[in-house]
Amino acid sequence: MIFYYAPKTVSVASHITLEETGASYESQRLDFSTTEQRSDDYLKVNPKGRVPALATDRGTITETPAILFYLAQSFPAKCLAPLDDSFALARIQAFNAYLCATVHVAHAHRIRGSRWVDDENAIKAMQAKVPQTMGECFALIDKEMFKGPWVTGQDYSICDPYLFTIENWLEGDGVDINDFPRIAEHNQRMREREAVKPVLELHGL
Amino acid sequence: MIFYYAPKTVSVASHITLEETGASYESQRLDFSTTEQRSDDYLKVNPKGRVPALATDRGTITETPAILFYLAQSFPAKCLAPLDDSFALARIQAFNAYLCATVHVAHAHRIRGSRWVDDENAIKAMQAKVPQTMGECFALIDKEMFKGPWVTGQDYSICDPYLFTIENWLEGDGVDINDFPRIAEHNQRMREREAVKPVLELHGL
Repeated sequence: MIFYYAPKTVSVASHITLEETGASYESQRLDFSTTEQRSDDYLKVNPKGRVPALATDRGTITETPAILFYLAQSFPAKCLAPLDDSFALARIQAFNAYLCATVHVAHAHRIRGSRWVDDENAIKAMQAKVPQTMGECFALIDKEMFKGPWVTGQDYSICDPYLFTIENWLEGDGVDINDFPRIAEHNQRMREREAVKPVLELHGL
Repeated sequence: MIFYYAPKTVSVASHITLEETGASYESQRLDFSTTEQRSDDYLKVNPKGRVPALATDRGTITETPAILFYLAQSFPAKCLAPLDDSFALARIQAFNAYLCATVHVAHAHRIRGSRWVDDENAIKAMQAKVPQTMGECFALIDKEMFKGPWVTGQDYSICDPYLFTIENWLEGDGVDINDFPRIAEHNQRMREREAVKPVLELHGL
C-alpha cells in the first residue's frame, strides 16, 4: 500500500492507524506549498486533489472515515473497531462522521475559506467565528460523546486518532485545549502510544 | 425504532433506506419552522439538535453515513452494501463521506451560512458561490465516481438514496441536473423504486 499524506493535515489520523495495524506500507509526502495535491500525477491517484489517499492493489481509498474503517476491517486482530456489534460500530461511525462533516469543516473555515466564498471580507468573517464554532464542537464532544479514557470508553478505537488529529488544530483555531481537561489528557495519552510516536515525528507535531 | 426527520432534509436518505429494509419503525416529524430540533425533548434524543436520528432500544444513532451503514449491516439479506468485501465497502463509505463532508457542506452554505459567519454580507457571499461549488461537486461525481445505472454499478447500495437526496437540492442550489444526464436518469430510476415512493409523498418531493 502507498499512503499519500501532507504534514499536520487530517492524514495524521490514517497515518497513526496504519502504524497501529502493523501493515507494510510506503509513505508518500505531498508538498502543499507547491500544490502538489493538484498535480496531474496525484489527480490520477485521487481526483479530488486532497489527502489522505491509500493506494491498494485494488484501487485507491479516500476520505478519513473510510480509510480508518477499512484498516479496522482489514486487520481485525488489532481490535480497532467493534466489527461484529452493529450498534457499537454505528456509534463509532457517527462520531467519525461528526468529526468529518462538522468539526473538520468548522476548522477549515479558518484556512480554506476560499472553498466557499470569493470575497476577502467574507473570508475574514469566517475566520473570526472559528474559535466559537470549534469551541462549541469540543464542548459538545466533551459533554455528550467522549467517554474517557478513550473516546468510546475503555477500548481504543478508530475514533481516537481522528479526534487526536483535530485536537492538535485547536491552538491555531483559537481554542485552549485545557478548557477541556479530559480532552487534554486524551491528547497526552495518545502521544504515549508506540504507534503514534513515529507519526508525530514525521508530521512535526 | 423511532426515526426523527424533517421534510426534504438529508433525512430522506435514511428514510428511504428504512423502507428498503422492511424494518418496523415509527416516523416522528420535527417542525424546523418552530426550531423543534432545538427543543429540550429532542436534545435528549440528539444533543446535536439535528436530523436524522434513529432511536433504537440500545440508544440513538445519528449522522447519515452511520445510519445507512447500520441499516445495511442490520439487514444483510437486503444486500444494501458489500459487507464482506472490505475494499468495496471502503469505496462505498468514501462516497458517502464525500457527500457528507463536501457536497452537503457546499449546499449548506446557501441555507445555513450562519453556522460559519455572523456577518450578513458574508452570508450573501457564501450563497453566491453555491451554484459553482455544487456544480463542481456533481461534475466530479459524474466523471469520477458514478458508475451507472447505480452509484457503484449494477448493484443498488446505500450510496444511492444519499445521492438521490442531494440531487433533489440541485435546483434550489442553482444547478441544472440535466447538465448531468446520467445523474438525472439516476434520479428518475430512484423515483420508480417501491421503497422510495412513500418517502417522496411524506417529504413532498
